[in-house]
Amino acid sequence: MRTITIHDAKDLRIDAQGEPAAPGDGQVEITLATGGICGSDLHYYNHGGFGAIRLKEPMILGHEVCGHVARVGAGVTGLNPGDLVAVSPSRPCGQCRYCREGHPNHCENMRFYGSAMPFPHIQGAFREVLLADASQCVVANGLSTGEAAMAEPLSVVLHACRRAGDLLGKKVLVTGCGPIGTLAILAARAAGAAHIVATDLSENALQYAAKVGADQTINMASDAAALSAYEAGKGTFDVLFECSGAPQALAAGIAAMRPRGVVMQLGLGGDMSIPMMQVTAKELDLRGSFRFHEEFATAIALMQSGRIDVKPLISHTLQLADAVAAFELASDRNQAMKVHISFA
Amino acid sequence: MRTITIHDAKDLRIDAQGEPAAPGDGQVEITLATGGICGSDLHYYNHGGFGAIRLKEPMILGHEVCGHVARVGAGVTGLNPGDLVAVSPSRPCGQCRYCREGHPNHCENMRFYGSAMPFPHIQGAFREVLLADASQCVVANGLSTGEAAMAEPLSVVLHACRRAGDLLGKKVLVTGCGPIGTLAILAARAAGAAHIVATDLSENALQYAAKVGADQTINMASDAAALSAYEAGKGTFDVLFECSGAPQALAAGIAAMRPRGVVMQLGLGGDMSIPMMQVTAKELDLRGSFRFHEEFATAIALMQSGRIDVKPLISHTLQLADAVAAFELASDRNQAMKVHISFA
Amino acid sequence: MRTITIHDAKDLRIDAQGEPAAPGDGQVEITLATGGICGSDLHYYNHGGFGAIRLKEPMILGHEVCGHVARVGAGVTGLNPGDLVAVSPSRPCGQCRYCREGHPNHCENMRFYGSAMPFPHIQGAFREVLLADASQCVVANGLSTGEAAMAEPLSVVLHACRRAGDLLGKKVLVTGCGPIGTLAILAARAAGAAHIVATDLSENALQYAAKVGADQTINMASDAAALSAYEAGKGTFDVLFECSGAPQALAAGIAAMRPRGVVMQLGLGGDMSIPMMQVTAKELDLRGSFRFHEEFATAIALMQSGRIDVKPLISHTLQLADAVAAFELASDRNQAMKVHISFA
Amino acid sequence: MRTITIHDAKDLRIDAQGEPAAPGDGQVEITLATGGICGSDLHYYNHGGFGAIRLKEPMILGHEVCGHVARVGAGVTGLNPGDLVAVSPSRPCGQCRYCREGHPNHCENMRFYGSAMPFPHIQGAFREVLLADASQCVVANGLSTGEAAMAEPLSVVLHACRRAGDLLGKKVLVTGCGPIGTLAILAARAAGAAHIVATDLSENALQYAAKVGADQTINMASDAAALSAYEAGKGTFDVLFECSGAPQALAAGIAAMRPRGVVMQLGLGGDMSIPMMQVTAKELDLRGSFRFHEEFATAIALMQSGRIDVKPLISHTLQLADAVAAFELASDRNQAMKVHISFA
Repeated sequence: MRTITIHDAKDLRIDAQGEPAAPGDGQVEITLATGGICGSDLHYYNHGGFGAIRLKEPMILGHEVCGHVARVGAGVTGLNPGDLVAVSPSRPCGQCRYCREGHPNHCENMRFYGSAMPFPHIQGAFREVLLADASQCVVANGLSTGEAAMAEPLSVVLHACRRAGDLLGKKVLVTGCGPIGTLAILAARAAGAAHIVATDLSENALQYAAKVGADQTINMASDAAALSAYEAGKGTFDVLFECSGAPQALAAGIAAMRPRGVVMQLGLGGDMSIPMMQVTAKELDLRGSFRFHEEFATAIALMQSGRIDVKPLISHTLQLADAVAAFELASDRNQAMKVHISFA
Repeated sequence: MRTITIHDAKDLRIDAQGEPAAPGDGQVEITLATGGICGSDLHYYNHGGFGAIRLKEPMILGHEVCGHVARVGAGVTGLNPGDLVAVSPSRPCGQCRYCREGHPNHCENMRFYGSAMPFPHIQGAFREVLLADASQCVVANGLSTGEAAMAEPLSVVLHACRRAGDLLGKKVLVTGCGPIGTLAILAARAAGAAHIVATDLSENALQYAAKVGADQTINMASDAAALSAYEAGKGTFDVLFECSGAPQALAAGIAAMRPRGVVMQLGLGGDMSIPMMQVTAKELDLRGSFRFHEEFATAIALMQSGRIDVKPLISHTLQLADAVAAFELASDRNQAMKVHISFA
Repeated sequence: MRTITIHDAKDLRIDAQGEPAAPGDGQVEITLATGGICGSDLHYYNHGGFGAIRLKEPMILGHEVCGHVARVGAGVTGLNPGDLVAVSPSRPCGQCRYCREGHPNHCENMRFYGSAMPFPHIQGAFREVLLADASQCVVANGLSTGEAAMAEPLSVVLHACRRAGDLLGKKVLVTGCGPIGTLAILAARAAGAAHIVATDLSENALQYAAKVGADQTINMASDAAALSAYEAGKGTFDVLFECSGAPQALAAGIAAMRPRGVVMQLGLGGDMSIPMMQVTAKELDLRGSFRFHEEFATAIALMQSGRIDVKPLISHTLQLADAVAAFELASDRNQAMKVHISFA
Repeated sequence: MRTITIHDAKDLRIDAQGEPAAPGDGQVEITLATGGICGSDLHYYNHGGFGAIRLKEPMILGHEVCGHVARVGAGVTGLNPGDLVAVSPSRPCGQCRYCREGHPNHCENMRFYGSAMPFPHIQGAFREVLLADASQCVVANGLSTGEAAMAEPLSVVLHACRRAGDLLGKKVLVTGCGPIGTLAILAARAAGAAHIVATDLSENALQYAAKVGADQTINMASDAAALSAYEAGKGTFDVLFECSGAPQALAAGIAAMRPRGVVMQLGLGGDMSIPMMQVTAKELDLRGSFRFHEEFATAIALMQSGRIDVKPLISHTLQLADAVAAFELASDRNQAMKVHISFA
């Protein structure tokens, strides 16, 4: 079977590998259908890693995947051959302190698909045949494979929404309108936000933001004053979803927050200088949000019931053979939004 | 000018009263447009009060009203003659302990329209001309007067939603589908609830529930087993909005809750026997919800932006001259939902 | 080895049983030191069960125990022969929905020591030699065995405190001053409560309440007016720990709560009639609290650091041979508080 | 009467001013007893302001004061001549959006004693005779005047504790052990924190930290490794009270936090560079905390009941005539902790 494997920065290959063994107890064999390219995949592709996290050996990429059940191992219930399943890339141990406290996303022994963080690296899911634990699989029948592959990034924003608290009737700012930012707009819209403003530097990104429901889009390259207008009085926004990882975006967002507002930091940046006097004087709550846990099943349910429609965000779908082109395309914020690879 | 005044149980009169003086500092004169009949109005009409709260003198009813600004007093800004305004019936003192703590709905000196609780009673707002404080008024231009008159009961359920926490992707049960219950369905739908089940004993009520978005309606008179099915495992619902005030409804709802679920009690009943062992063993949170405060402006904003459409719940609109007929109609749960009186 | 086994109501026996096998992987053999008698043990002893939960076969009682490590199985780290350990009776599966969400106390497959709920019953820990999982054990060196055996009930109140939110400077009411109520007083005191009032019908219980820090004790049999005085204005208490399971205590407590107060229900009663109008109008939060999870280690730490001193609550310690006398004594609220059995 | 007035950086004068008029309706005349020097007073004294906030005209300093009631105006109840009262410097309008929402510390029209922020400046309370609103006064009979003057800074940390959530059994880090940091230690101790570590660069400050209950003190100038040790695993502390305003302190603290920990930012710094990747990946909650509101009365109550003893933190008390010496002393972190001025 074929895999999409990163060997070094800009050295992405379609490698061949033997088929996996038959599924063991509690396991499922999945014929992969669709995989989405995530920002972290792009970091490995373009830079060989990020921060202190560096590739040390070839690693199969990918953690936003779905496929069809081919075979089920002993003891598996509720999954049948032919089912479309979204596969959660999150594999916490279930035994450590953080798992026991209900924070499996902070598991001390996490084996998250396609991560170079421990060594040997945790291999990813971009492979034609995937052996997964049944507990990772959520049945997604009725969805397109493109939608099912969006369950993972949608879970990320659902987790952030849950940490942000209720949004009904709230004023929301989203800074950074890549796939995570635009999904945050969709989720905030579904949660009843009254007014959503989105900022970015790319017109392409802002067009997607408008398409999925932003009430106002602001290009910070040309129209930063439009955001400053929200600083009037003591500020405007109840909630900020910071999805860019850019210090300037965070600082501009903080200035537009009302006292007691909540800032959800999803964007992954390095050290960021922030106007702490405003955080203190306005008593803002700046909360990190990282991955997800039980929101994965919720994501599927929200798509199945039609409450959230992610299809407008899938800008391109390429074949497995064109994986390198897909990664190049996904790296271009002025052209693409979410890029999918078809394994079928 | 004419008022709708309750003199005793079943003794509702259209009385004449002198016009109010010109609006003073910070005040607004409003030509009333529409008033909604609330459950507490009906209690005064049908029973002369409820529990220990009894009529002791004639009282103008009504606290769900809107109208058009006729004249504004000195120092009033942001309100102009001709504006449609929804008028909040809540007049807290702003100085007592609970006001200072941000809970004006628990104000020790509250003067809520149409309440027999203190004596002399607090007169209500069903009068052709209403003198109100500017701070009670929210501009509702663009809405119909029927919608504007729904701001008050919608605020009640928004307050309950805020106390319930985020609903995105949650499973919600609503027991009792009168105006408050059906508005709770609308609000839960707007807040992204994934699955909403509604119960009542009246087919008429359940039809409205379905119309505003309940995924399933259950007539407890004929099909209680359909709710019991949700007791499977450790129970199903994340949130219950109890809007009936009936102990049986609360008990049946508690049995269908999942551990750590939240029960919002909006229905006003007397002493209620509840299965406390389940509350303890499932660690349910049973939270009272009473009136509202800053949600009043949010209600208007959510209707103006189209996020919540209350129009399907206005079942009848009668003229002021037909007020008694309107109260009779509103008392019949098998015919009516929200009954409005037109003062225009 | 000997066990304390309940055969039927009032039929408690000291039975003999074979020694357990050597500890397996991850297991620890413990020479039991001290066991505390809990209210549920007394229900089995006096009534053969409670509510729908009935004894169907003989069951070893006990779930408040500590002892010394005798032998450790393979793979056990951090526990050494001779260590004093408190043993958590809570054995959740770690895999079900509630375990994954961080609520192991609601585990669908819980095997809690000394519970007749599933059948076959889950045998308890009152046995001279106990084989436990290492993950159940918390090292309690430096504590007396009496203190270590209090870790379990102390965890129950720590869990309730955590659910109640911060108590610093708050006014607290405790209704029912058995071992759970008096431990709640100790915990509320440690958490900085400004004023603690305790009620009961037993003078003996109230004396213990005063001894561990209640600022005022009220005997509801003779002086209920002293509690009613707290109903003045809109009520007084920020938090109520209801530890009696008596509907009258809950109703009297609710009447003395201030708006937005929190009622923690720990006492296990059946159906309870409550003044729901007050719950709604004061927007009280009535929260069930059931068992505990990670608070077990916290309980040990708080005793080791001297922040909480449970010793005054251990009223009697009897030898294993006198188990029946110990159960009789523990059943008499006018004589005993916490009764311990020494297995040494 | 005499006042302590700042005319410019390093130009502090004891000025004479006419006596105030007799107390009006709802007012109280207070013979000042004791005033505490706060960090913001020192900023005006040493630098003429901070950040964009600059002195533009002479301003009476001081907002941590107490005194004895001399005369009461009409309509004042509960205050009698001779009473010792602590005077809250916080005078919110009670009408703006934030007052109505229960956040008077964010009042849009705040008149906080001794603030150069609006112009004309809000004059402070360091004056021999003070006319205050009765609603600002809390009776502090039974306390020393030194304790009563500590109500204000104690309120600041109680507010931060309330925002931090419950501390019972938690591991707490305090960075910066000036008056606010040491009071945070006292409050965290009163709230049941299990383990408190305090850091600073000054040995004098750390000695005070130890005296009021820090379990471990770390001098970051000489022993930073002792704090780094807490980074093991995923980090240690549940709560950080950052009271220094120094970016290095915040960064070092963040590194030692456990996932899902809470960082309370009390120290006022300018732009601060923070390791945002850790905030995100550990899902920390960084919350600003600013002033206080109803905690003022709680502070008095906690001192009166003996739960919190602030006396060890009052390092020096000088006479009004020695005000300049007092400000010099308070500016020297290696000598002083809280410096009081006696007006009696």
